[in-house]
Amino acid sequence: MLTIAVDAMGGDNAPECVVEGTVETLRESGNRLEVLLIGQEDKVRPLLDQHDTSSLNLRFMHAPEVVTMTDIPAIAVKTKQNSSLVRGLTLCREKKADGFVSAGNTGALMAASLFVLGRIPGVLRPTIYAYFPRLGPGLTNIVDVGANVDCKPENLVQFAEMLTIYQRDAAGMDKPVTGLLNIGEEENKGPEYLKQTFNLLKEADRKNRINFIGNIEGNDILLSKASIIVCDGLVGNTLLKFGESIPKFLGSIFKPSIEKLVKSGQLDPKSAEITAQTFKAMFQPFDVEQFGGVPFLGVDGISIVGHGRSSKTAIMNMIFMAEHMIEKKVNQHIAEALA
Amino acid sequence: MLTIAVDAMGGDNAPECVVEGTVETLRESGNRLEVLLIGQEDKVRPLLDQHDTSSLNLRFMHAPEVVTMTDIPAIAVKTKQNSSLVRGLTLCREKKADGFVSAGNTGALMAASLFVLGRIPGVLRPTIYAYFPRLGPGLTNIVDVGANVDCKPENLVQFAEMLTIYQRDAAGMDKPVTGLLNIGEEENKGPEYLKQTFNLLKEADRKNRINFIGNIEGNDILLSKASIIVCDGLVGNTLLKFGESIPKFLGSIFKPSIEKLVKSGQLDPKSAEITAQTFKAMFQPFDVEQFGGVPFLGVDGISIVGHGRSSKTAIMNMIFMAEHMIEKKVNQHIAEALA
Repeated sequence: MLTIAVDAMGGDNAPECVVEGTVETLRESGNRLEVLLIGQEDKVRPLLDQHDTSSLNLRFMHAPEVVTMTDIPAIAVKTKQNSSLVRGLTLCREKKADGFVSAGNTGALMAASLFVLGRIPGVLRPTIYAYFPRLGPGLTNIVDVGANVDCKPENLVQFAEMLTIYQRDAAGMDKPVTGLLNIGEEENKGPEYLKQTFNLLKEADRKNRINFIGNIEGNDILLSKASIIVCDGLVGNTLLKFGESIPKFLGSIFKPSIEKLVKSGQLDPKSAEITAQTFKAMFQPFDVEQFGGVPFLGVDGISIVGHGRSSKTAIMNMIFMAEHMIEKKVNQHIAEALA
Repeated sequence: MLTIAVDAMGGDNAPECVVEGTVETLRESGNRLEVLLIGQEDKVRPLLDQHDTSSLNLRFMHAPEVVTMTDIPAIAVKTKQNSSLVRGLTLCREKKADGFVSAGNTGALMAASLFVLGRIPGVLRPTIYAYFPRLGPGLTNIVDVGANVDCKPENLVQFAEMLTIYQRDAAGMDKPVTGLLNIGEEENKGPEYLKQTFNLLKEADRKNRINFIGNIEGNDILLSKASIIVCDGLVGNTLLKFGESIPKFLGSIFKPSIEKLVKSGQLDPKSAEITAQTFKAMFQPFDVEQFGGVPFLGVDGISIVGHGRSSKTAIMNMIFMAEHMIEKKVNQHIAEALA
């Protein structure tokens, strides 16, 4: 039976949501896996006691320290060895757990994963991707979104290769398609490192390691042209944060306009309510919750990073994601491909 | 009297919109400037003949060739010397015109401006900025948005300095504020070239050449934190194109939802119509028309670039922008600052 270690203290809604998500995961999965919940006993125990966990494969482990969202990653990893975050990853390294899940400080989780688990042999730099909205079926992932800056062409190509394996094996996609985010569609466009990356991606395509459709531009991101969009972490991180800020920005224009229409009698309150719901629903493709989290691809172990705002459903999805990655041998396939 | 050369053939709506915008400009300005309209005689003359231009300071000049939107910039500049685009800029160099305005092929206009007009002494690389939406008063410009990739720290600092001068002198802003687009707020964040840029921007701030507020992130762009956001052209271009694709993307989710509500009787047609108008109005801050175009900052002359979709109002705004830049001596001030 697989054992997934879960950071009870990670995320804005921790430990409440993490405890609830864990309990639901075990119930929903018919106890097919074991969860090792790690956190501060005085905070987590009372929450666990609210549930009947006697029949569940649920163990608790005390960790006195907590890595906070404002901790500086490199320092936290060194000074908070007794945190749930570092302990969970250490258990993975010692093979006492098969994977680790946390909605805590992303930077700290990446730093600790790299430090504790190390890289899969052949991997130059592990990477983090993110989900982007798209119309219709399939999914769009942008890689990298902040784990790596100053990326070299060979880094970007590995990101595409690793994510191709993940999408094919773990996400069950027939044919993941890679596009290179650039300033124009033509082959000779953009900065030098992207011209070189273009050539390396073409070579990887010829070797059937990826399916490369060439350069794509910013206005192609939402158009479902590629399931994997490759870029430097500065570009991906900026796009991700910009995209996440849009619903609130537009809401702050739309909502007062609707309220004004109601006040002036041009729109009845019931229609306004329906309109507001439709407006909110429009941003569902922007909702990260449905995906839960993302794996830190390329580290020698299973380390799943969740959004700080993760709900219990997100926690559940992250635990299943860890299970799935292990069962589908994603890391083994990455090691074979990049050896 | 100032003479502004206008590319009659530039833009998706040319020459119709350009002719109309030109005529309106002269009428609205009380003939305080002269416009030299350049384009293919058989296309432009019939349109001019629809107006009574006898009292206007409007001259027409025939140019047999046209640079199209799909022309490759570097090639177009060399092979289409008799195009309205190259001729207009050449007139500026020969001091037969004081500025040039075009809504045509942006890449070609940049290449031709650089080739024909050259750089202001001291300017390492001319640059193009773009307007981004913001709440409340003021404006947000991102620089560079595609004229320059592989930017060096000293390029990025000059972009901030040039745009500070433009915003202060031509846009009449009291205190333009510069932010550096990066992966995190802390000083030591991001790629190497941005760490160096950070230090150079701080130095420029100490010398009162700019007002630097430090690093800002993707989610800060819409928050009116800075009037000048500095980044490499790859990042700015990607953000610009991504942002421009959002209204259509969201509309393709929102509109069918509203139509469905009308069909099912949950929303009456009149409320749906009002809602649709409110939705459309929400994107007004994304509307480039109101600004018209942007100057190619750093070239030794006045070269205003408009969006391909420029309306007659946009053309008018671009002509006034050229006039304003000349009157406010923006290029002279850039030359003095960067000498």
